[in-house]
Amino acid sequence: MSVFVYPGSFDPVTNGHMDIIQRAAKLCDKLVVAVLVNSSKNPVFTLEERVDLLKCAVKGIDNVEIESFSGLLIDFMRKKNSKVIIKGLRAVSDFEYELQMALLNKNLDSDIETLFMMTNINYSFLSSSSVRELARHNGNIDGLVPDCIKDKIMDKFRR
Amino acid sequence: MSVFVYPGSFDPVTNGHMDIIQRAAKLCDKLVVAVLVNSSKNPVFTLEERVDLLKCAVKGIDNVEIESFSGLLIDFMRKKNSKVIIKGLRAVSDFEYELQMALLNKNLDSDIETLFMMTNINYSFLSSSSVRELARHNGNIDGLVPDCIKDKIMDKFRR
Amino acid sequence: MSVFVYPGSFDPVTNGHMDIIQRAAKLCDKLVVAVLVNSSKNPVFTLEERVDLLKCAVKGIDNVEIESFSGLLIDFMRKKNSKVIIKGLRAVSDFEYELQMALLNKNLDSDIETLFMMTNINYSFLSSSSVRELARHNGNIDGLVPDCIKDKIMDKFRR
Amino acid sequence: MSVFVYPGSFDPVTNGHMDIIQRAAKLCDKLVVAVLVNSSKNPVFTLEERVDLLKCAVKGIDNVEIESFSGLLIDFMRKKNSKVIIKGLRAVSDFEYELQMALLNKNLDSDIETLFMMTNINYSFLSSSSVRELARHNGNIDGLVPDCIKDKIMDKFRR
Amino acid sequence: MSVFVYPGSFDPVTNGHMDIIQRAAKLCDKLVVAVLVNSSKNPVFTLEERVDLLKCAVKGIDNVEIESFSGLLIDFMRKKNSKVIIKGLRAVSDFEYELQMALLNKNLDSDIETLFMMTNINYSFLSSSSVRELARHNGNIDGLVPDCIKDKIMDKFRR
Amino acid sequence: MSVFVYPGSFDPVTNGHMDIIQRAAKLCDKLVVAVLVNSSKNPVFTLEERVDLLKCAVKGIDNVEIESFSGLLIDFMRKKNSKVIIKGLRAVSDFEYELQMALLNKNLDSDIETLFMMTNINYSFLSSSSVRELARHNGNIDGLVPDCIKDKIMDKFRR
Repeated sequence: MSVFVYPGSFDPVTNGHMDIIQRAAKLCDKLVVAVLVNSSKNPVFTLEERVDLLKCAVKGIDNVEIESFSGLLIDFMRKKNSKVIIKGLRAVSDFEYELQMALLNKNLDSDIETLFMMTNINYSFLSSSSVRELARHNGNIDGLVPDCIKDKIMDKFRR
Repeated sequence: MSVFVYPGSFDPVTNGHMDIIQRAAKLCDKLVVAVLVNSSKNPVFTLEERVDLLKCAVKGIDNVEIESFSGLLIDFMRKKNSKVIIKGLRAVSDFEYELQMALLNKNLDSDIETLFMMTNINYSFLSSSSVRELARHNGNIDGLVPDCIKDKIMDKFRR
Repeated sequence: MSVFVYPGSFDPVTNGHMDIIQRAAKLCDKLVVAVLVNSSKNPVFTLEERVDLLKCAVKGIDNVEIESFSGLLIDFMRKKNSKVIIKGLRAVSDFEYELQMALLNKNLDSDIETLFMMTNINYSFLSSSSVRELARHNGNIDGLVPDCIKDKIMDKFRR
Repeated sequence: MSVFVYPGSFDPVTNGHMDIIQRAAKLCDKLVVAVLVNSSKNPVFTLEERVDLLKCAVKGIDNVEIESFSGLLIDFMRKKNSKVIIKGLRAVSDFEYELQMALLNKNLDSDIETLFMMTNINYSFLSSSSVRELARHNGNIDGLVPDCIKDKIMDKFRR
Repeated sequence: MSVFVYPGSFDPVTNGHMDIIQRAAKLCDKLVVAVLVNSSKNPVFTLEERVDLLKCAVKGIDNVEIESFSGLLIDFMRKKNSKVIIKGLRAVSDFEYELQMALLNKNLDSDIETLFMMTNINYSFLSSSSVRELARHNGNIDGLVPDCIKDKIMDKFRR
Repeated sequence: MSVFVYPGSFDPVTNGHMDIIQRAAKLCDKLVVAVLVNSSKNPVFTLEERVDLLKCAVKGIDNVEIESFSGLLIDFMRKKNSKVIIKGLRAVSDFEYELQMALLNKNLDSDIETLFMMTNINYSFLSSSSVRELARHNGNIDGLVPDCIKDKIMDKFRR
């Protein structure tokens, strides 16, 4: 059984992330979307909120599971018996950071592969931080996040 | 009447900014220099100080106005009845961030254009943060900021 | 009267070029699309063919003229009494080459400005060479070039 | 059965290519290494020589086939009933060109995915052209190409 | 006597830094490794710890001295009577930041040169922050830092 | 005696090259400017012309020699008993190509170092090809090449 892992902060999940989830799910038996409990970054949405938003967004995609993890991604990969990390690359993206992470993980475990997919061109400018910035100023996030979670995101910033 | 908007933090205004202001002012009837009240970035100079430094620096350029704004740039553009955002691009600059902002704004309002101008080559290494770093350590900022505001900047760091 | 010049090889014109032409035409009184007679590059379409394809594509946009020029762009700008060069920047583009040309032209004539516009995200991967490669192999160029010139382009490669 | 296609000029195959072939072969049932008959590039090694060198280099990797193709990659993918293009990305690589090709192929057939893998860090500076340049000047290509084809490459340049 | 200065945060020193130290020491009479007391960055290791780790790591390289400095690098260079700043460039590195610093220092003192060396390809993905991230999660840092300081680094994160 | 080698096509030498020559000459006992006899690139100026232009340009800089070489740079370095290759990096430059060459040379001879210097900001847009393009169209090359060789360059294109 081929298990791919798609790690990230998902703070919150965007249509750019969903594009990768839908396409990667077609390439493997099981896709684990791994929400990073990242001590150094202080996310706006709590871990529970981020997992909840993802679970709502992936409803209907059968072979996708949502989990959170802390510590090293490599250790989580072993726990999940997965050899493949999937990452999205945006035309406008911090390619060098992704490159550095892929080479670092390769150095830690040469069996583990990082496969990059180009995010759909329509989302190449989209990031969680731009969604947060828009929502913070009551801007329109239509088309940027899955419809089922739009209100939850706007409510977060209204509170 | 063609109104261009030149948004930024201007923390503080540098000769790189002034280069763009002087050149952009020749291309439109009115140039609004929009100082961003950016909650997430904690600027060193207060909003009032940043606006004051700009007003002093643009004295003599008739068709330039200084304003501050918070919230989405797109909303400010509509208020000012402007369709053109002017941005400086330095040879050594975070091109990808500017690209992302231009595409995001385009997605929000397809009528609004972002026009990029190359900053004068002599200022291609210059940023507000490098001016602050120099002033913090009592370094020489001659030629990096307009003469009329040099002392105000150095005083800020002496206090 | 504001005259902008949009120079290029247009070998052939694509929907990416047309996106810039339509948007730039709204920002000035007259837009001159300047087809470069470039001795060093051996274009696939002749100068006449490139000019003809452009004339067909811009029908209906009143303030756009098509001209060819050889020699230095700066000299052509003076002949046209224009101070603004318009260039498209693709998210996936040779930014450094465009930067170099803008700085070189600035060095030749400090009054002339190069303004960059982001090409529509849907055409950020599109170039004349990719259109030629597709047409050469009888691939589908729908949506990549204006409809009115599609057959002329395919015929070129069938001959 | 999962079929991946690894396209390229392979002029000649290098250890950087072999690194991708060995790792990609573990991720699919069959890996087709597709040698491009590229009219516009005039390769140094003939198509037959390039295929022969590859066949020698992949001996022992059971699920790898070598084929040549001309025309559009997308058409070849359909012939091979494959949905995945594998490409190597070098830390020092023309990322923007690969990005453009991936987006262009995506535009032609949205079912086809391009997956990028980071080439082993030791080969991040290696390219077919640098191997040719070394061999042309009788330089040492040990460790840069599979041992079994070293002499064939040097002989090519001695003739 | 030729004195080179190699400035950095060294938070902590890695094998990537050591690679530059060993190679730069061969190119000059004296190499001063200058540990930056950087108020704006809050380093994980104290200044004393960073200097101590470096002193342990460079034992045996005769012409290398470890010093700390605060304020402008240019002022420190004059104190050390040095005209050359040595900096490592990683294939995967923030080239633009290094470029900006080199041009800024050049603007402050045209006699001072910044020379860049390519970090060894095996460390092109390595940074102090990736070492800290690994150690924080009890990951394996073998081969990433000098052996003599490995335990000190792991102890820091265990406390 | 420290011998540095500054290799290039110099087709023709520009003020950007001269900036590197003057600065590098201060860092070593002897600087050898090595004009590459590059079979694959068909230079506009003959080897003799390129050497002659350089000799005229470096008159007065005592510790600089002009030589031509063919074959591998590494072999030429050994002949000159030099361990250091000097290369200029322009803010707007093909950094990735220079990186690739430095890593390739390092792979061929680990004792040989490539040191990069930032070209003076005023020449960061300047290249031999832009000088040729200007001269070809009878454009003004003042300030772009040493005065003593200006007429020789313009004459070349008038013939």
